[in-house]
Amino acid sequence: MPTSVGLALLGPGNVGAGVVAALRNGAARYAQQVGRPLELRRVLVRDASKPRDGIDAAILTTSIDDVLGDPSVEIVIELMGGEHPAREYIQAALESGRHVVTANKEVMAKCGRELLAIAAQHHVRLLYEASVGGGIPVISPLSRDLLANEITAVTAIINGTTNYMLTGMAQQGTDYAVALAEAQRLGYAEPDPTADVEGIDASYKLAILCGLAFHVAVAPDQVARQGITRLGARDFRYADALGYTIKLLATGRLLDGGVVASVQPTLIAKDEPLAKVDGVLNAVQIEGDLVGRVLFQGRGAGANPTSSAVLADVIDVARDIVAGRTPTDGIELRAIPVHPPADHRSRYYLRVTVQDRPNVLARIAGILGGREISIASVIQFETDDDARTAELVITTHHATGAALDAALAEIRALDVVVEVGNVLAMAG
Amino acid sequence: MPTSVGLALLGPGNVGAGVVAALRNGAARYAQQVGRPLELRRVLVRDASKPRDGIDAAILTTSIDDVLGDPSVEIVIELMGGEHPAREYIQAALESGRHVVTANKEVMAKCGRELLAIAAQHHVRLLYEASVGGGIPVISPLSRDLLANEITAVTAIINGTTNYMLTGMAQQGTDYAVALAEAQRLGYAEPDPTADVEGIDASYKLAILCGLAFHVAVAPDQVARQGITRLGARDFRYADALGYTIKLLATGRLLDGGVVASVQPTLIAKDEPLAKVDGVLNAVQIEGDLVGRVLFQGRGAGANPTSSAVLADVIDVARDIVAGRTPTDGIELRAIPVHPPADHRSRYYLRVTVQDRPNVLARIAGILGGREISIASVIQFETDDDARTAELVITTHHATGAALDAALAEIRALDVVVEVGNVLAMAG
Repeated sequence: MPTSVGLALLGPGNVGAGVVAALRNGAARYAQQVGRPLELRRVLVRDASKPRDGIDAAILTTSIDDVLGDPSVEIVIELMGGEHPAREYIQAALESGRHVVTANKEVMAKCGRELLAIAAQHHVRLLYEASVGGGIPVISPLSRDLLANEITAVTAIINGTTNYMLTGMAQQGTDYAVALAEAQRLGYAEPDPTADVEGIDASYKLAILCGLAFHVAVAPDQVARQGITRLGARDFRYADALGYTIKLLATGRLLDGGVVASVQPTLIAKDEPLAKVDGVLNAVQIEGDLVGRVLFQGRGAGANPTSSAVLADVIDVARDIVAGRTPTDGIELRAIPVHPPADHRSRYYLRVTVQDRPNVLARIAGILGGREISIASVIQFETDDDARTAELVITTHHATGAALDAALAEIRALDVVVEVGNVLAMAG
Repeated sequence: MPTSVGLALLGPGNVGAGVVAALRNGAARYAQQVGRPLELRRVLVRDASKPRDGIDAAILTTSIDDVLGDPSVEIVIELMGGEHPAREYIQAALESGRHVVTANKEVMAKCGRELLAIAAQHHVRLLYEASVGGGIPVISPLSRDLLANEITAVTAIINGTTNYMLTGMAQQGTDYAVALAEAQRLGYAEPDPTADVEGIDASYKLAILCGLAFHVAVAPDQVARQGITRLGARDFRYADALGYTIKLLATGRLLDGGVVASVQPTLIAKDEPLAKVDGVLNAVQIEGDLVGRVLFQGRGAGANPTSSAVLADVIDVARDIVAGRTPTDGIELRAIPVHPPADHRSRYYLRVTVQDRPNVLARIAGILGGREISIASVIQFETDDDARTAELVITTHHATGAALDAALAEIRALDVVVEVGNVLAMAG
């Protein structure tokens, strides 16, 4: 009988270093929880000659074959990030009979279904709590505590970079470019911020969340996606005047026997719990038929919070190994459709620059009415006397994406419309 | 082999009716999740002649012996509330080899330790997720998702009645009596509100939370407790001016090799997540060495949210029954002390009415300084020219309860002090 549970780590970067440190600092506690010590046996790196803090140089290797060729390795922790070669390594580990714990949102969003099936075939587990919301517990609440509920909606703030930027824009009245520069200066945003500000990162995480909440396979490219790059200081001013703030919301909902999934900057009433989630915090709100709305909030990134989630998964698998339990992670997926964006229904906020002439509003209202889009409110916020233009902010009742797009095309074609400045969804 | 999992329900009140309705509405889903249907076999009532919505009259009984004499009953759901006879019935059910699911905070706080030991002796499970925070998942995050962390603090808003009242006082500037009358009118507060407004209900829940978070047995009477009845509209005005709001916080913390536990109205900075938890919402904030702070928020009471938690426990046990798994709920308790209130360290807010004369502040400051209590701020808020009195609000740096009590005794004895109006803890 082995005297420890053997681990391998792929990718000792920032999070990996956090996991190594936690394994060292918490060793006695984890050994007690698991029933045997957790022991790091192999660490896959790009450059084995570079010394690594707290890692014995003898266990460094640059070859995945070395890792999977070591029979003492029972759990593989994948923290490389990116799709390739992480995906191939995860698959190889599962096929070799190793349990895998990963924080890789891109791989889990794009190929999670296939990889979970491979894990099931090989009677091993693939766990990925750290791929969504850092250390915030999401997976076991959904798979245990909320099991009595039909989950009807998941609404989340799952990108800390953009939430930091939007909080700054809301509180300081800054414009997008200023907020981005500040986030980059602080290291919250990458030099190329595309994955964050275009909602790509959030769409991966939402795809994973939808699988857990609704038991439906949602591919990242089935998530309707709108970035935050067109938001201006004035959108926050107008939203504020209407009683709202703006958040990049990732939303999945059961609708008409299917699922809708979107990541988009959204006006949300200031007294909603999600409206109060500020800075780099993440939050996941789950709506169930019995429980109503529950919200989980915490730090969604960083070495330590992510290590917390990775190690919870490792301890869970290690306990199974020690107890000789057979894994049972199979989620039966439901065969219900993922609706295209045209079918989404939402309330909308439209900011339109028009010529300051009589009858302009009547023409826009007529177009919206013709598409059966009811207007909830109209406010003329600012006029530019020199240009003889005015800015209208129109909010609508619920309408489909298709109806809105058709109406917007007609509105843009009006000679009195200078520009449709921004179109945003409204929560609720 | 049985074709269903047999349940008995003790106490078909408000929550019980919710559980019965959910068992009916979710029957197909639960049968799929468990592997067998859940079937209600016995319902213990006070009056078996009174018809109950959705319950076959043939399974009603007024005798616990009837319930426990039915060999088809495998799980007993206790929703009677109160200490007696619920405690005795839970014990009898466990001793007869039945798993028990309960929402009973009083029993679990006062005798949870003994009952869990009895469950372990009889190889059955005693689950109690519904006893804290209604439908908010708390137990499985603590027992699974946050397991890699050393939990250092739990801070919670776990009494919806008082949070509704305090939210009203903060937002509308009303006084305690008005807020209480409003809560009673809406049915949020009982005709006798003692258990809520004196923090007794919250102290039960905190005792349970401390057991889960720190693995230490905390008895409800070891929780330092201060009610909200002395709070006035002016306390909220002054707190607001200082950048704070006031919440009834239930706090457990590791400190000096022991645990401190308190339920008390507490000034909390307005930008803290817990400060934004309003109305009847509950929230539990957990602090771990890796994850930092995570917050769980939702409706802490009501038939449906509580049913959500009760049924999650029922499904969990039922799955074990179907899989033939042996329960493993034993929490090994740590033998560390629970510190008395005199040892607690906190910042404090003191509201003191003094005669409007020179040198008064110097004398109060001298007393505090003599007890090594540093003053953080002093504001003279209001003066009453007729009475020639002024109201001082003093905030302090961290001090022990013992030092504060000694200082307060001296301050009260000063001839220039008319009254110590209120003394409140400050979070942070």
